[in-house]
Amino acid sequence: MRDAYHEELDSLTDKLVEMTRLVRSAISRATTALLDSDLSLAESVISRDEDVNATFAAIESSIYDLMARQQPVAVDLRMVITALRMGTDLERMGDLAVHVAKVARLRHPDSAIPPQMRSTILEMGQIAENLVTKAGACVASRDVESALELEQDDDAMDRLHRKLFRLLLAKDWAHGVEPAIDITLIGRYYERYADHAVRVAQDVVYLVTGTRPT
Amino acid sequence: MRDAYHEELDSLTDKLVEMTRLVRSAISRATTALLDSDLSLAESVISRDEDVNATFAAIESSIYDLMARQQPVAVDLRMVITALRMGTDLERMGDLAVHVAKVARLRHPDSAIPPQMRSTILEMGQIAENLVTKAGACVASRDVESALELEQDDDAMDRLHRKLFRLLLAKDWAHGVEPAIDITLIGRYYERYADHAVRVAQDVVYLVTGTRPT
Repeated sequence: MRDAYHEELDSLTDKLVEMTRLVRSAISRATTALLDSDLSLAESVISRDEDVNATFAAIESSIYDLMARQQPVAVDLRMVITALRMGTDLERMGDLAVHVAKVARLRHPDSAIPPQMRSTILEMGQIAENLVTKAGACVASRDVESALELEQDDDAMDRLHRKLFRLLLAKDWAHGVEPAIDITLIGRYYERYADHAVRVAQDVVYLVTGTRPT
Repeated sequence: MRDAYHEELDSLTDKLVEMTRLVRSAISRATTALLDSDLSLAESVISRDEDVNATFAAIESSIYDLMARQQPVAVDLRMVITALRMGTDLERMGDLAVHVAKVARLRHPDSAIPPQMRSTILEMGQIAENLVTKAGACVASRDVESALELEQDDDAMDRLHRKLFRLLLAKDWAHGVEPAIDITLIGRYYERYADHAVRVAQDVVYLVTGTRPT
């Protein structure tokens, strides 16, 4: 049987995995809201970010408790410190999904995404979901090999991000400056979301090995 | 005389203040590089980001040492945990200055900033410097009142950020999509830089009072 101390450490992991689920759902709904110009879905992403923040607040509070009462050392200390870092990244991923949803809300009932860019944005959303799903699995399993794989999926996001710019700068771009601004920001939000997912996976590597991948 | 433990805690503060100096210098040089299309200045921002990262790595390493050997409690524990958060924010501010410098480098020998936007960008750069200077002073002094003032300076940044969009969307915008993309990203970098400076100040409030400003 696990003692109370180790149960608290396990519960940190559970809460982090819960955060990955919440921010995966958020980016998934935000992408659909953006592509379908779905106002109520966009609103749901914005209002439910509170759940992400509340889960992070619970993690922070557990960390202070654990630190003050239990004085964790070695891998347990790394767990507590990396939980704080991972929680910070996941909270930010929730914010980025909210930013995407706010663009959808701002342009409703129009869509911020011109037809020739829909498939690229859809793919960016899918990669973002895939990255956070994998990051969550790594947090739960502490599997270093799969954590290291996330970098490659992030390369796919970077390629799509560059593709967005190529489409914006193509000679046949006929939508003017306003959609270009929206798409520049949206592209940045997805790219940052992916970067934070990779950082979560890197923290899993650090947690297990004591060394951060370069 | 301070004992070794408290000297280590003080040294955390010193290193954080040093990070604020480094990232203030970085955003200052990045702004000048952008406005004067100064390639060597841009390169210096990019290469010297290593100093910021090395200082943060030293902070992280001190934190693990302190945690493992000293088991800090109460305000000392808050200091150690917030140092980790503040260091993360300051490291990110260094990255954002690098992003600004990279736009300058990409467009060199041209300038990414059309004439009618120079004064706005200059002002955003000045507010960014001002915010990080104040954040550094708060970290050193632990003065809650001045930490709370940073929110207002950040409002000024938000106003300038909105002004950038108005200029981009004005009927007389004659520079096409590419400069609009550059300026959208640059505006975002300054705005995020300011947000991170505000977070550092909020962490000072938390460190002193145990409560985070909402």
